[in-house]
Amino acid sequence: MEDIKGIRTINLREADPDKLREQLRHYFHQTCNIEEKLYETLADDSVFYLRADPLRHPLVFYLGHTAAFYINKLIIGRVIGERVNPAFESMFAIGVDEMSWDDLNEAHYDWPAIPEVRTYRGLVRARVDKLISELPLDERGITWESPWWGVIMGIEHQRIHLETSSVLIRQLPLDQVRQLDFWAVCPEAGQAPENALLPVEGGTVKLGKDDSDPWYGWDNEYGSAAFVVKDFMASKHLVSNAEFLEFIEAGGYREQRFWTEEGWSWLSWQQASLPRFWKKADDGFKLRLMACEIPLPFNWPVECNYLEAKAFCNWKALQTGRPIRLPSEEEWMLLRDGRVKTDQPLWDRAPGNINLEWWASSCPVDRFAFGDFFDVIGNVWQWTETPIYAFPGFKIHPIYDDFSVPTFDGRHNLIKGGSWISTGNEALRKSRYAFRRHFYQHAGFRYIASDAQLTDHDEAAESDPAIIPWCDANWGDNPLGGKNIDARLVELLQAWIAPLAGGKALHLGCKTGRGSFELARTFASVTGVDFTTRLIRLATQMKEKGYIRYLRNDEGEIQSYVEKQLADFGLETTAARVEFWQADASNLLAKFSGYDFILAVNAVESAINPGRFLRDIHKRLNAKGMLALADGWSWDPEITRAEDRIGGFRKDGDPYPAFQGVTEILEPEFVLLTAPQDIWQTLRIEERCHTLKKLHLSIWKKRN
Amino acid sequence: MEDIKGIRTINLREADPDKLREQLRHYFHQTCNIEEKLYETLADDSVFYLRADPLRHPLVFYLGHTAAFYINKLIIGRVIGERVNPAFESMFAIGVDEMSWDDLNEAHYDWPAIPEVRTYRGLVRARVDKLISELPLDERGITWESPWWGVIMGIEHQRIHLETSSVLIRQLPLDQVRQLDFWAVCPEAGQAPENALLPVEGGTVKLGKDDSDPWYGWDNEYGSAAFVVKDFMASKHLVSNAEFLEFIEAGGYREQRFWTEEGWSWLSWQQASLPRFWKKADDGFKLRLMACEIPLPFNWPVECNYLEAKAFCNWKALQTGRPIRLPSEEEWMLLRDGRVKTDQPLWDRAPGNINLEWWASSCPVDRFAFGDFFDVIGNVWQWTETPIYAFPGFKIHPIYDDFSVPTFDGRHNLIKGGSWISTGNEALRKSRYAFRRHFYQHAGFRYIASDAQLTDHDEAAESDPAIIPWCDANWGDNPLGGKNIDARLVELLQAWIAPLAGGKALHLGCKTGRGSFELARTFASVTGVDFTTRLIRLATQMKEKGYIRYLRNDEGEIQSYVEKQLADFGLETTAARVEFWQADASNLLAKFSGYDFILAVNAVESAINPGRFLRDIHKRLNAKGMLALADGWSWDPEITRAEDRIGGFRKDGDPYPAFQGVTEILEPEFVLLTAPQDIWQTLRIEERCHTLKKLHLSIWKKRN
Repeated sequence: MEDIKGIRTINLREADPDKLREQLRHYFHQTCNIEEKLYETLADDSVFYLRADPLRHPLVFYLGHTAAFYINKLIIGRVIGERVNPAFESMFAIGVDEMSWDDLNEAHYDWPAIPEVRTYRGLVRARVDKLISELPLDERGITWESPWWGVIMGIEHQRIHLETSSVLIRQLPLDQVRQLDFWAVCPEAGQAPENALLPVEGGTVKLGKDDSDPWYGWDNEYGSAAFVVKDFMASKHLVSNAEFLEFIEAGGYREQRFWTEEGWSWLSWQQASLPRFWKKADDGFKLRLMACEIPLPFNWPVECNYLEAKAFCNWKALQTGRPIRLPSEEEWMLLRDGRVKTDQPLWDRAPGNINLEWWASSCPVDRFAFGDFFDVIGNVWQWTETPIYAFPGFKIHPIYDDFSVPTFDGRHNLIKGGSWISTGNEALRKSRYAFRRHFYQHAGFRYIASDAQLTDHDEAAESDPAIIPWCDANWGDNPLGGKNIDARLVELLQAWIAPLAGGKALHLGCKTGRGSFELARTFASVTGVDFTTRLIRLATQMKEKGYIRYLRNDEGEIQSYVEKQLADFGLETTAARVEFWQADASNLLAKFSGYDFILAVNAVESAINPGRFLRDIHKRLNAKGMLALADGWSWDPEITRAEDRIGGFRKDGDPYPAFQGVTEILEPEFVLLTAPQDIWQTLRIEERCHTLKKLHLSIWKKRN
Repeated sequence: MEDIKGIRTINLREADPDKLREQLRHYFHQTCNIEEKLYETLADDSVFYLRADPLRHPLVFYLGHTAAFYINKLIIGRVIGERVNPAFESMFAIGVDEMSWDDLNEAHYDWPAIPEVRTYRGLVRARVDKLISELPLDERGITWESPWWGVIMGIEHQRIHLETSSVLIRQLPLDQVRQLDFWAVCPEAGQAPENALLPVEGGTVKLGKDDSDPWYGWDNEYGSAAFVVKDFMASKHLVSNAEFLEFIEAGGYREQRFWTEEGWSWLSWQQASLPRFWKKADDGFKLRLMACEIPLPFNWPVECNYLEAKAFCNWKALQTGRPIRLPSEEEWMLLRDGRVKTDQPLWDRAPGNINLEWWASSCPVDRFAFGDFFDVIGNVWQWTETPIYAFPGFKIHPIYDDFSVPTFDGRHNLIKGGSWISTGNEALRKSRYAFRRHFYQHAGFRYIASDAQLTDHDEAAESDPAIIPWCDANWGDNPLGGKNIDARLVELLQAWIAPLAGGKALHLGCKTGRGSFELARTFASVTGVDFTTRLIRLATQMKEKGYIRYLRNDEGEIQSYVEKQLADFGLETTAARVEFWQADASNLLAKFSGYDFILAVNAVESAINPGRFLRDIHKRLNAKGMLALADGWSWDPEITRAEDRIGGFRKDGDPYPAFQGVTEILEPEFVLLTAPQDIWQTLRIEERCHTLKKLHLSIWKKRN
């Protein structure tokens, strides 16, 4: 094997700093070298300016991009202070993804000459090489927090683009590219094997990597999640061109019933009738490879997007009467782990067509066996049913904060297993990449038969600006210092509620539930109620999954992704004692009664009918039960009609504060236990901008 | 003199508690008695339900109102705990003033029977009498803070209504009222004396009463103001019916040119052609008195509203070519104090037709001489040019917080001097009553000739919800405790600015000027600049008058009137060193330069063009000058267009905070002196609801 191909991602915990430094230097240069080799495929420099895909930048952008990325990340990580070429580092910074047509208007871009970009690449390469020589390194190796992380991130980023650019080159006109020996395609082709469904035994799958993992990972790979996977059947082979042709010939691209709505919409827009790289010729089908065209090899894996793969499965399901679909991420992993016992950095030679260790193309689907299955990894990526999501424990790497989060939108499905050109992190067991479902990579699929329900990972970080401040108020730090407001409130109540320990509590205005969980340290059962469904959804997620995520607004358009775990607050044991309901506090169902204690936070001021709420509340309490009101008496005209307010106006000529109204309503049923006190509540709008409420806390005891 | 008339308001500082208690009891009962006497004028109880004025309640309301007022004020003052009749105390609470027609819809009211109201009055009278017996009293007497204040306020309130009800009775049909001997009218009538303008020597007038004044005062009488009044001429007599008739016969009610816009608008609406109580009869004019009609006495003072008095003056000015107008409050007081050497509680018998010591009507304008002038006090109230305003030092009495503030609107002009039925506080030298300019009381006028400019008291308390929070932030307490933010900010800067003492400072985003005044403790000259004219107006008022007023929002519709004085902060001596300008910080005139120090607070985030502001700012500073930025980096899309922001967005794919933008712009000209620090800024929206900003404070030195 040539030194430039089949490179392994390096062990970042190598304890010998000199060795690690040189391994990294080698990895860096070989990454640059292989990328240069890729671009040699272009007929000449003018091809860099052609747009291979109508919604993507021309390749000149990517030529500059992988170099500029190092500098941009090292600048933002404060590893280096000086830019190499500020104009290039701005021009080549963003635009990797599919764009909208107006963003791509070429009038916005004045691409530089290729020699200039090559010179720039050389300067960056020298700068990074120098940095590799100079950055301090010790026996702890390179960790997520290390300034070195920007270097290894740059290398792995470049390796991703090695693959994505190979796809773009594959989309260029054939006469603009050259088939080089270096990128030799697999010479093997023939009839496809008969596919078959073979059993996969169920089991528990653990996903996610922890900080001790020695190999580079993108932020979305960290954290942990566990799944119990049922037994299923999986196709022995990846779906071959021959097998996919059956679908086409059965009217696959003409019959809407096989397609998801999204799929049919894409097909109609694209006028697609064949997979993207197939071409119908007089003498049958051709297959476009990266730099050449060959007769369609029937025994190679079909390459398609998720939407086509899914339509195939639906057709197959109808045809066979079996629950055919794509595997979920965890099903895919269960199948893999039973059959691949090694990982890229550790293997002698790749057990499949991956890591550029075999060919610069796919190969027959029966070429690489892994037990009774073939192509468990390698050859082409395999689409899954799972939209990418964050594992619990996910955190963003600060120097590349939008690598993953924008893809947690339910519209990017995971691809697994890697292709012939997947190298570096891409070829690792724990890598996770996701693309829009209509996107093309060197990707195909294996189908499975299973009636197991797919796990819903609809846990996109909360982004509603009306909801986020409550996430932060409930689970974030108190910006004024001291205890979090909900924890503090329950602490203030402790002396009063201690005698009620083991009883039943109702928490009105529970928001995302922090106070309810806190109350459940004392009470045997706590019901959290809020009028806002989105808040209750988060409270319930916290109970059921133990975490919530939200996008916190930091400054202007800058946001942070935040995950909060119940366990971080020592509240995981309370979850079983808490339940949440969406309800209007002014109009509670009869079932919300029999409580020993009621805590109502911001509940009067945000009640639709605060008078009815207060007149009714005693019915919810057991005899001698207690009621705590923590309220700002600040009415929202969108919620409480002026005529339904119970104070905060002039009555018979004199000021009539809300608490006077509260007192007059409650007094027949309650006695005020102690002088009310004030407690500050902050709602974070931005890092430097908050809403501050001085809550008025009063504690009442039901007379009988 | 009968014991029921000619009563004097009592000395609240009487040191003998028993004596004071009995004086108060006597004053209370005689006040009730005289009011009863007034209502005896009505033909029968049915008259209580007639509406004397189409925009006022019928007299039944006032019958209940003066009693209910005692209970309402004693309840809100927490002097008593139990109401006498909650329904009555609500029904009779509000509606004294002119109302809009829909508020008066009688369908809203179900007035009780008169015997019921009389019974209620009896109960209240007994309750107050009992209170007078029981409330503790010592040698300090009765002060503003005393629970007794509600009692004396109730009595004085009843005495106001004695007069205002007499005006309403005067508006009832003649056949519905009875002329009683008790309310005997003046029998003297005849030809009017020739009026003449006599000189009044100018001088200094001090207005306002302090807490040591022994006689009851309404809150608007307290505080102090001083004026230098120029010499002027004043009419020897009040304007008589005869003199006013000249105006009428000269087309006074037909020619718009004599009238103010407001006056003409009123006249057109009312279709007025004569003063309200005149009636044209076959045998000449009649004059309606409270309970009878008499031939118009030409030598009695005309009674009219301000608008008519003003039109007369304008006519007279045109006719004579002299600057004829009504006196201001201070001119009126200068004239009075030179001629009336006593005050109601101290005189043996009233020196004029006032305090019910002579007749139950006006009398001839040449009946009571005060030196060379007549009717300096008494006979009828005298309209002035001065809309009522708060003296510096004004504070609201908490049990009647809307007695005065609603009249500080520039639409209520002061009347002075009292009428024949002005008793109690109304008859005191320092009393201040004001009515809408179209209102009728027993009021006429004296004209003066003066070319002195009228003082503009346009100091209505600031009520703009966008401005008030800045008043409070600048001059109020820090709701989080500790120093006021502006004082704290200048304190934090002290070490840096001390070496620049005696120099010149610019304060951008000065709001209502607190920071500018604080900086002027150090600098010889401070220029405060803000973009918002209303803020600069307040800052300028603070400099020029030493105080500002604003209506603070407390809770819902409940507001507090707040006055802040420069002297309270020890800043009065700095005022001469400070000046304020309205200007756009992004586009400052060249004159704003040559500074040693610039403090810009919230100035970047609220700049129209923050980039231009920052690029330009070094030109304003002397060499080695210093710049302090305290900013929340929180853009308002109404002010700063998205494309003009200098941070708070993603740039080339990475977060680009505003301070990074600031740093890049400032660095060529400035060096950052120290690590930025945070300082909390609160903006009070309501007592329990604030906006909280964490300002980022950075200090820069100009390179050269």
